[in-house]
Amino acid sequence: MNKLKIAVVCYGNVGRFTVEAVRAASDMELVGVVRRSESLNKKPIELNDVKVVSNIDELGKVDVAILCGPSRMVPELAPLYLSKGIYTVDCFDIHTDIYDLHEKLDELAKKNNVGAVTAAGWDPGSDSVVRTLMMAMAPKGLTYTNFGPGMSMGHSVVARSKKGVRNALSMTIPCGAGIHSRMVYVELEDGYTVEQIYDELKADSYFAHDELHVIPVASIDECKDMGHGVLMERKGVSGITQSQRFKFEMTINNPALTGQIMVACARAIVKQRPGCYVMPEIPPMDYLQGTKEFLIKSLI
Amino acid sequence: MNKLKIAVVCYGNVGRFTVEAVRAASDMELVGVVRRSESLNKKPIELNDVKVVSNIDELGKVDVAILCGPSRMVPELAPLYLSKGIYTVDCFDIHTDIYDLHEKLDELAKKNNVGAVTAAGWDPGSDSVVRTLMMAMAPKGLTYTNFGPGMSMGHSVVARSKKGVRNALSMTIPCGAGIHSRMVYVELEDGYTVEQIYDELKADSYFAHDELHVIPVASIDECKDMGHGVLMERKGVSGITQSQRFKFEMTINNPALTGQIMVACARAIVKQRPGCYVMPEIPPMDYLQGTKEFLIKSLI
Repeated sequence: MNKLKIAVVCYGNVGRFTVEAVRAASDMELVGVVRRSESLNKKPIELNDVKVVSNIDELGKVDVAILCGPSRMVPELAPLYLSKGIYTVDCFDIHTDIYDLHEKLDELAKKNNVGAVTAAGWDPGSDSVVRTLMMAMAPKGLTYTNFGPGMSMGHSVVARSKKGVRNALSMTIPCGAGIHSRMVYVELEDGYTVEQIYDELKADSYFAHDELHVIPVASIDECKDMGHGVLMERKGVSGITQSQRFKFEMTINNPALTGQIMVACARAIVKQRPGCYVMPEIPPMDYLQGTKEFLIKSLI
Repeated sequence: MNKLKIAVVCYGNVGRFTVEAVRAASDMELVGVVRRSESLNKKPIELNDVKVVSNIDELGKVDVAILCGPSRMVPELAPLYLSKGIYTVDCFDIHTDIYDLHEKLDELAKKNNVGAVTAAGWDPGSDSVVRTLMMAMAPKGLTYTNFGPGMSMGHSVVARSKKGVRNALSMTIPCGAGIHSRMVYVELEDGYTVEQIYDELKADSYFAHDELHVIPVASIDECKDMGHGVLMERKGVSGITQSQRFKFEMTINNPALTGQIMVACARAIVKQRPGCYVMPEIPPMDYLQGTKEFLIKSLI
């Protein structure tokens, strides 16, 4: 069997767990990690036997590039790789911009006869698949997605960027029915107060709409835990039968699940026709290893 | 928009709820119901304005035939319709025979340039999709599927067929970790004892492997409730991160959900390339109405 040649692009939290998931997949080969040139001389010990480069061309043949950097880098990185004839998987998570990115990458992927999965991960991602399936099972009704308790990487980054904040951790706390509050733990710089930080966060669109609590702590590092979770609930109508109830719940290590799902998407995308896909557009069986016969016999 | 022309074949519990779901779908038209000729003169009141025939040819153009009869009829009915150029959806649920049926229908569907969904419904069916997705999220680990409490239609039929049993209802009771017990409620014929029925059921492969309780009641009809449920749990490994936990739970009207899912599969199958599919082979988004733009913006 020819192993799928995978490059992991960017090596933060998600990149690290993605490397682990690629190495755990017997049908894949990690051909290397792409990092910014500034990071090349600080090679982490677990990448000792891995080629780390700043330009993907140095890795030779790559089938799929898994983009593990922040969302804002995806609109420039994915087209770069697609135009080289490399499939891409990204975890772009700015919900309102996904459709436009999808259309843009779709055109490029088709032009270059490759494929892209955008918005892979767990939300958007596997949660989107569950929402789609629940909708098929009960077309009329309401779905609530409750996140957490868990660290929001995006909100933590924004909180950390505020003046007077040395370090920050934003926790998402589910209040039920899709309502959340934000508990932001902060290491304050000298001369700044909790009230100042609260006002500054409340003025930011990231925090403006949710209940907000700002809590000063001595060390953010001591509070960090990558555990996260979700509870999705739908109550709806099948045909004309009311009150059908569905629930999906998980308790997971956040970057580990994101990495694993992106690896499953890398496996799936090379089986699709050229174009860009979000996860609900992909046949779920394509995420898995094994013959059709084995999978039908073991999963159906 | 051209509405999808649907025929519902067989009109028991699942057929009745499937008719309701077809009528609730604005992109579909119920062209008729196919029943055995013996049933044609006992037309139920809710089918007053529906064409009920014994031969599908009398319905004119049909896009998809939804087969709502018992599993054992599927291997002869589905090929009949596929060879007429009609797409089929069935709820064949004999897990061990699904792969062979899939292969047989796949060949026929391709030959006739149409499509078939086999083993649609909730288990096999949507549960199979959830098991597939959980496997993608944590490839190593164990999934438990716990059914009920709820009536097993298959086990009830078998119990009813035993000598000395006037009527029976077999309830599936979940005991955790995928283990179930069967509680069989029976109306006894005169001269038969609970012990006799117990022994006869225990000798049948349908009941041989589970804990069994036989309970005599005056009226089965008074005990009947079509509510059912499932709890699927997986604990597994994403990459090398242990103890990722997933749970899918639902409490539903059983034939209503089966009917609704078969209707969603009818919508999806006409979008696939010719062949036979089980649900994990179908992109989930294809089950839904609406443009790609609308669906991506509302579900992702």
